[in-house]
Amino acid sequence: MPKSPIEFWFDFSSGYAYFAAATIDEIADRQGRTVLWRPYMLGVAFKHTGVRGLSSTPMKGDYARRDWARLSRQTGLAFQPPENHPITALPASRAYYWVEEHAPEVAHDFARAAFHAYFAEAQDMTLPANVAAVGAKLGLPAAEIEAGISSEPIKAMVKAASDEAIAKGVFGSPFFLVDGEPFWGLDRIPMLKSWLETGGW
Amino acid sequence: MPKSPIEFWFDFSSGYAYFAAATIDEIADRQGRTVLWRPYMLGVAFKHTGVRGLSSTPMKGDYARRDWARLSRQTGLAFQPPENHPITALPASRAYYWVEEHAPEVAHDFARAAFHAYFAEAQDMTLPANVAAVGAKLGLPAAEIEAGISSEPIKAMVKAASDEAIAKGVFGSPFFLVDGEPFWGLDRIPMLKSWLETGGW
Repeated sequence: MPKSPIEFWFDFSSGYAYFAAATIDEIADRQGRTVLWRPYMLGVAFKHTGVRGLSSTPMKGDYARRDWARLSRQTGLAFQPPENHPITALPASRAYYWVEEHAPEVAHDFARAAFHAYFAEAQDMTLPANVAAVGAKLGLPAAEIEAGISSEPIKAMVKAASDEAIAKGVFGSPFFLVDGEPFWGLDRIPMLKSWLETGGW
Repeated sequence: MPKSPIEFWFDFSSGYAYFAAATIDEIADRQGRTVLWRPYMLGVAFKHTGVRGLSSTPMKGDYARRDWARLSRQTGLAFQPPENHPITALPASRAYYWVEEHAPEVAHDFARAAFHAYFAEAQDMTLPANVAAVGAKLGLPAAEIEAGISSEPIKAMVKAASDEAIAKGVFGSPFFLVDGEPFWGLDRIPMLKSWLETGGW
């Protein structure tokens, strides 16, 4: 029987999700799993938890900025988001679902490229044109992606994903589900690996 | 030149600190370091960050309870705090500073025993008599510990520790400082180990 996919819930404006996105497919692959990427609006979860974003939380924000820089040096992944980080990730999330529907074979590449454009190149991803340009580099039709970003069915998909996240108890980014078992945070990836290797405990 | 101690900041009512307390001395020892245990009042940090305790945060609280049980099964450390967890850890924190001053050689054992009494035996650690009894089992004078818990100089030490935590950017539990480098959370211990082994990056 095939193993169920790992669900990878994230927000495109999440620094920790950017680092997780670079490794999760490979981790899953080694255990014979695929990954179901599920961008959602973390702000919806914040309304339920009453939590503020990391960057705007006193003390935690300073720690996170230092930690991202440290992770960047450790992993070799560039980390240079726009000065006004974090900004809304809605256009990228919508575009992701368009790509998943129309060109699923490059959907993960598109997501990683969208993360890179924002976190490594400081591109303004609130602009649908910039998001569509990321797709164009992968050979996707930019105009259709832009149209998708503003289409009602795609908007509804992001909203439905955010509702599904809440219903499943997902409140952070990155947040993983392995056969229903939740793992919150980039630094829980080692435990997720152990869980995959052992079948859980 | 001797290496500086690892600072281990924590609150005695923190589940993740309980698990960290079981391993941090050994981790440090392997790298030729000692650990300076610094109980403080996490509630003071919460006033700065605007954060609520894990257990009382919607969604996060459910996740934490599941995660503690999972960590308990993984590590073999019992996890059965009082039903009304979390309750104030002030008496244990005060007692710690009394023990550190009067019997420093058993201070870490006392802290681990105080964690155990609360998290494994569900003892009500708001009662100074219960905290003092933990000391008595280690051969310490219970009456003197109880007197210490209500003494002004000891009260002032816990307050000063909490102020020092804030001044150093410490806002969580467990929270480690290695030569000034901050590591927040039980699940950052693997990175802390790498930092110790490599000297940082």
